[in-house]
Amino acid sequence: MVIKGIRTEKKEMNIKIVNIADKLKLIQEHWKPRIAGELNDSYVKLVRLKGEFIWHHHESEDELFWVVKGKLRMQLRDQELIVGEGEFIIIPRGVEHRPLADEEVHVILLEPKTTVNTGTERSERTAEAEWI
Amino acid sequence: MVIKGIRTEKKEMNIKIVNIADKLKLIQEHWKPRIAGELNDSYVKLVRLKGEFIWHHHESEDELFWVVKGKLRMQLRDQELIVGEGEFIIIPRGVEHRPLADEEVHVILLEPKTTVNTGTERSERTAEAEWI
Repeated sequence: MVIKGIRTEKKEMNIKIVNIADKLKLIQEHWKPRIAGELNDSYVKLVRLKGEFIWHHHESEDELFWVVKGKLRMQLRDQELIVGEGEFIIIPRGVEHRPLADEEVHVILLEPKTTVNTGTERSERTAEAEWI
Repeated sequence: MVIKGIRTEKKEMNIKIVNIADKLKLIQEHWKPRIAGELNDSYVKLVRLKGEFIWHHHESEDELFWVVKGKLRMQLRDQELIVGEGEFIIIPRGVEHRPLADEEVHVILLEPKTTVNTGTERSERTAEAEWI
Protein backbone atom coordinates (compact mmCIF):
# COMPACT_ATOMS: atom_id res chain seq x y z
CA MET A 1 0.00 0.00 0.00
CA VAL A 2 2.85 2.34 0.77
CA ILE A 3 4.45 1.59 -2.55
CA LYS A 4 1.20 2.17 -4.36
CA GLY A 5 0.77 5.46 -2.50
CA ILE A 6 4.17 6.69 -3.58
CA ARG A 7 3.54 5.76 -7.18
CA THR A 8 0.19 7.53 -7.21
CA GLU A 9 1.71 10.66 -5.72
CA LYS A 10 4.40 10.72 -8.39
CA LYS A 11 1.79 10.30 -11.09
CA GLU A 12 -0.28 13.17 -9.71
CA MET A 13 2.72 15.47 -9.82
CA ASN A 14 3.14 14.75 -13.51
CA ILE A 15 -0.41 15.68 -14.43
CA LYS A 16 -0.36 18.81 -16.56
CA ILE A 17 -2.82 20.85 -18.54
CA VAL A 18 -1.91 21.10 -22.21
CA ASN A 19 -3.05 24.13 -24.19
CA ILE A 20 -3.27 23.07 -27.83
CA ALA A 21 -2.94 26.52 -29.41
CA ASP A 22 0.07 27.41 -27.24
CA LYS A 23 1.84 24.19 -28.16
CA LEU A 24 1.11 24.65 -31.87
CA LYS A 25 2.73 28.10 -31.77
CA LEU A 26 6.00 26.41 -30.78
CA ILE A 27 6.02 24.26 -33.91
CA GLN A 28 7.95 25.76 -36.83
CA GLU A 29 8.05 23.04 -39.46
CA HIS A 30 5.27 21.50 -41.50
CA TRP A 31 4.56 17.76 -41.56
CA LYS A 32 6.61 17.05 -38.43
CA PRO A 33 4.25 15.77 -35.72
CA ARG A 34 5.25 16.56 -32.13
CA ILE A 35 4.10 14.60 -29.11
CA ALA A 36 1.88 16.53 -26.69
CA GLY A 37 0.61 13.70 -24.52
CA GLU A 38 0.63 9.96 -23.98
CA LEU A 39 -2.02 7.65 -22.68
CA ASN A 40 -2.24 3.89 -22.74
CA ASP A 41 -0.40 2.77 -25.89
CA SER A 42 -1.01 5.99 -27.80
CA TYR A 43 0.42 9.43 -28.36
CA VAL A 44 -1.48 12.66 -28.85
CA LYS A 45 0.49 14.56 -31.48
CA LEU A 46 0.24 18.06 -32.91
CA VAL A 47 1.22 18.92 -36.45
CA ARG A 48 1.07 21.86 -38.86
CA LEU A 49 0.37 20.88 -42.44
CA LYS A 50 0.84 22.81 -45.65
CA GLY A 51 1.12 21.44 -49.15
CA GLU A 52 0.83 17.78 -50.01
CA PHE A 53 1.98 14.64 -48.28
CA ILE A 54 2.75 11.24 -49.81
CA TRP A 55 0.38 8.34 -50.34
CA HIS A 56 0.81 5.85 -47.52
CA HIS A 57 -0.98 3.48 -45.20
CA HIS A 58 -0.38 2.04 -41.77
CA GLU A 59 -0.28 -1.73 -41.58
CA SER A 60 -1.84 -2.22 -38.18
CA GLU A 61 -2.69 1.19 -36.74
CA ASP A 62 -5.84 3.29 -37.04
CA GLU A 63 -5.17 7.02 -37.08
CA LEU A 64 -7.32 9.95 -36.01
CA PHE A 65 -6.98 13.40 -37.64
CA TRP A 66 -8.65 16.21 -35.78
CA VAL A 67 -8.64 19.62 -37.42
CA VAL A 68 -8.32 22.54 -35.02
CA LYS A 69 -7.57 25.16 -37.66
CA GLY A 70 -8.04 25.28 -41.41
CA LYS A 71 -9.38 22.75 -43.85
CA LEU A 72 -7.81 19.35 -44.43
CA ARG A 73 -8.23 17.53 -47.72
CA MET A 74 -7.99 13.80 -47.11
CA GLN A 75 -7.53 11.87 -50.31
CA LEU A 76 -8.47 8.20 -50.37
CA ARG A 77 -8.07 6.04 -53.45
CA ASP A 78 -11.74 6.36 -54.33
CA GLN A 79 -12.75 9.74 -52.91
CA GLU A 80 -11.61 12.96 -51.27
CA LEU A 81 -13.03 14.11 -47.95
CA ILE A 82 -12.80 17.65 -46.60
CA VAL A 83 -12.31 17.84 -42.84
CA GLY A 84 -13.11 21.27 -41.40
CA GLU A 85 -12.39 22.93 -38.08
CA GLY A 86 -13.88 21.05 -35.15
CA GLU A 87 -14.18 17.86 -37.17
CA PHE A 88 -12.28 14.61 -37.09
CA ILE A 89 -11.77 11.64 -39.36
CA ILE A 90 -10.44 8.18 -38.51
CA ILE A 91 -8.43 6.36 -41.15
CA PRO A 92 -8.54 2.62 -40.43
CA ARG A 93 -5.43 0.49 -40.72
CA GLY A 94 -4.66 -0.66 -44.22
CA VAL A 95 -6.43 2.22 -45.98
CA GLU A 96 -4.22 4.27 -48.31
CA HIS A 97 -4.53 7.99 -47.75
CA ARG A 98 -2.86 11.27 -48.61
CA PRO A 99 -3.42 14.46 -46.59
CA LEU A 100 -3.35 17.76 -48.48
CA ALA A 101 -3.45 21.31 -47.15
CA ASP A 102 -3.95 24.15 -49.66
CA GLU A 103 -3.66 26.64 -46.80
CA GLU A 104 -2.05 25.88 -43.45
CA VAL A 105 -3.93 23.36 -41.33
CA HIS A 106 -3.42 22.57 -37.65
CA VAL A 107 -4.15 18.98 -36.75
CA ILE A 108 -4.19 16.81 -33.68
CA LEU A 109 -3.26 13.22 -34.36
CA LEU A 110 -4.09 10.31 -32.19
CA GLU A 111 -2.31 7.09 -32.96
CA PRO A 112 -0.42 4.18 -31.38
CA LYS A 113 3.11 4.92 -30.23
CA THR A 114 4.43 2.58 -32.91
CA THR A 115 3.01 4.70 -35.76
CA VAL A 116 5.43 6.20 -38.29
CA ASN A 117 4.08 9.29 -40.06
CA THR A 118 4.69 7.91 -43.55
CA GLY A 119 3.35 4.45 -42.68
CA THR A 120 4.99 1.65 -44.62
CA GLU A 121 6.67 4.20 -46.95
CA ARG A 122 10.03 5.81 -46.28
CA SER A 123 10.70 9.25 -47.74
CA GLU A 124 12.28 12.58 -46.83
CA ARG A 125 8.99 13.25 -45.07
CA THR A 126 9.55 10.36 -42.65
CA ALA A 127 10.04 11.96 -39.24
CA GLU A 128 10.63 10.67 -35.74
CA ALA A 129 8.23 12.45 -33.43
CA GLU A 130 9.69 14.38 -30.48
CA TRP A 131 7.95 15.79 -27.43
CA ILE A 132 6.98 19.42 -27.38
CA MET B 1 -5.24 -10.11 -52.61
CA VAL B 2 -8.83 -10.07 -53.70
CA ILE B 3 -9.99 -10.61 -50.16
CA LYS B 4 -7.76 -7.82 -48.90
CA GLY B 5 -9.09 -5.54 -51.65
CA ILE B 6 -12.67 -6.15 -50.62
CA ARG B 7 -11.91 -5.51 -46.99
CA THR B 8 -10.13 -2.25 -47.77
CA GLU B 9 -13.02 -1.09 -49.93
CA LYS B 10 -15.49 -1.80 -47.16
CA LYS B 11 -13.33 0.12 -44.71
CA GLU B 12 -13.14 3.12 -47.04
CA MET B 13 -16.93 3.23 -47.29
CA ASN B 14 -17.17 3.46 -43.52
CA ILE B 15 -14.89 6.47 -43.24
CA LYS B 16 -16.92 9.43 -42.08
CA ILE B 17 -16.26 12.97 -40.98
CA VAL B 18 -17.49 13.65 -37.45
CA ASN B 19 -18.48 17.19 -36.51
CA ILE B 20 -18.02 17.51 -32.75
CA ALA B 21 -20.41 20.42 -32.18
CA ASP B 22 -23.17 18.78 -34.22
CA LYS B 23 -22.85 15.54 -32.28
CA LEU B 24 -22.84 17.33 -28.94
CA LYS B 25 -26.13 19.02 -29.84
CA LEU B 26 -27.73 15.57 -30.03
CA ILE B 27 -26.81 14.79 -26.43
CA GLN B 28 -29.49 15.64 -23.88
CA GLU B 29 -28.25 14.22 -20.60
CA HIS B 30 -25.29 15.20 -18.48
CA TRP B 31 -22.58 12.72 -17.44
CA LYS B 32 -23.54 10.14 -20.06
CA PRO B 33 -20.66 9.76 -22.50
CA ARG B 34 -21.60 8.79 -26.06
CA ILE B 35 -19.27 7.12 -28.52
CA ALA B 36 -18.35 9.21 -31.57
CA GLY B 37 -15.50 7.15 -32.97
CA GLU B 38 -13.33 4.11 -32.44
CA LEU B 39 -9.71 3.48 -33.29
CA ASN B 40 -7.38 0.73 -32.20
CA ASP B 41 -8.52 -0.31 -28.71
CA SER B 42 -10.04 3.06 -27.84
CA TYR B 43 -13.23 5.03 -28.13
CA VAL B 44 -13.59 8.75 -28.73
CA LYS B 45 -16.51 9.81 -26.56
CA LEU B 46 -18.45 13.05 -26.19
CA VAL B 47 -20.05 14.14 -22.96
CA ARG B 48 -21.84 17.16 -21.49
CA LEU B 49 -21.03 17.79 -17.84
CA LYS B 50 -22.83 19.90 -15.26
CA GLY B 51 -22.57 19.65 -11.51
CA GLU B 52 -20.32 17.24 -9.71
CA PHE B 53 -19.30 13.69 -10.38
CA ILE B 54 -18.11 11.05 -7.91
CA TRP B 55 -14.56 10.31 -6.80
CA HIS B 56 -13.22 7.37 -8.77
CA HIS B 57 -10.21 5.92 -10.49
CA HIS B 58 -9.55 3.53 -13.32
CA GLU B 59 -7.46 0.52 -12.45
CA SER B 60 -5.60 0.08 -15.71
CA GLU B 61 -6.73 2.81 -18.09
CA ASP B 62 -5.39 6.30 -18.68
CA GLU B 63 -8.08 8.81 -19.62
CA LEU B 64 -7.91 12.00 -21.65
CA PHE B 65 -10.32 14.91 -21.02
CA TRP B 66 -10.41 17.52 -23.74
CA VAL B 67 -12.51 20.60 -23.11
CA VAL B 68 -14.23 22.00 -26.19
CA LYS B 69 -16.60 24.32 -24.32
CA GLY B 70 -16.64 25.73 -20.81
CA LYS B 71 -14.30 25.22 -17.90
CA LEU B 72 -13.68 21.86 -16.25
CA ARG B 73 -12.59 21.62 -12.64
CA MET B 74 -10.60 18.43 -12.16
CA GLN B 75 -10.15 17.57 -8.51
CA LEU B 76 -7.28 15.32 -7.54
CA ARG B 77 -6.64 14.26 -3.95
CA ASP B 78 -3.91 16.87 -3.51
CA GLN B 79 -4.91 19.63 -5.91
CA GLU B 80 -7.54 21.01 -8.28
CA LEU B 81 -6.74 21.79 -11.90
CA ILE B 82 -8.84 24.02 -14.16
CA VAL B 83 -9.01 22.85 -17.75
CA GLY B 84 -10.20 25.54 -20.16
CA GLU B 85 -11.43 25.49 -23.75
CA GLY B 86 -8.87 24.07 -26.15
CA GLU B 87 -6.99 22.36 -23.36
CA PHE B 88 -6.66 18.74 -22.36
CA ILE B 89 -5.57 16.78 -19.32
CA ILE B 90 -4.59 13.13 -19.05
CA ILE B 91 -5.41 11.30 -15.84
CA PRO B 92 -3.11 8.29 -15.50
CA ARG B 93 -4.47 4.94 -14.35
CA GLY B 94 -4.76 4.59 -10.60
CA VAL B 95 -5.12 8.31 -9.89
CA GLU B 96 -8.29 9.27 -8.02
CA HIS B 97 -10.13 12.15 -9.63
CA ARG B 98 -13.44 13.95 -9.57
CA PRO B 99 -14.64 16.17 -12.43
CA LEU B 100 -16.77 19.20 -11.53
CA ALA B 101 -18.61 21.62 -13.79
CA ASP B 102 -20.05 24.79 -12.25
CA GLU B 103 -21.46 25.74 -15.65
CA GLU B 104 -22.02 23.31 -18.49
CA VAL B 105 -18.85 21.86 -19.99
CA HIS B 106 -18.48 19.94 -23.24
CA VAL B 107 -15.75 17.35 -23.18
CA ILE B 108 -14.19 14.85 -25.51
CA LEU B 109 -12.96 11.73 -23.78
CA LEU B 110 -10.41 9.37 -25.12
CA GLU B 111 -10.07 6.06 -23.34
CA PRO B 112 -9.80 2.30 -23.86
CA LYS B 113 -13.01 0.54 -24.85
CA THR B 114 -12.98 -1.27 -21.52
CA THR B 115 -13.29 1.97 -19.50
CA VAL B 116 -16.34 2.42 -17.28
CA ASN B 117 -17.18 6.08 -16.57
CA THR B 118 -17.20 5.62 -12.79
CA GLY B 119 -14.05 3.49 -12.78
CA THR B 120 -13.96 0.91 -10.01
CA GLU B 121 -16.98 2.57 -8.32
CA ARG B 122 -20.58 1.69 -9.12
CA SER B 123 -23.22 4.37 -8.62
CA GLU B 124 -26.35 5.77 -10.26
CA ARG B 125 -23.91 7.70 -12.44
CA THR B 126 -22.49 4.48 -13.89
CA ALA B 127 -23.50 4.48 -17.56
CA GLU B 128 -22.93 2.17 -20.49
CA ALA B 129 -21.79 4.29 -23.42
CA GLU B 130 -23.82 4.10 -26.64
CA TRP B 131 -22.94 5.34 -30.10
CA ILE B 132 -24.23 8.68 -31.25
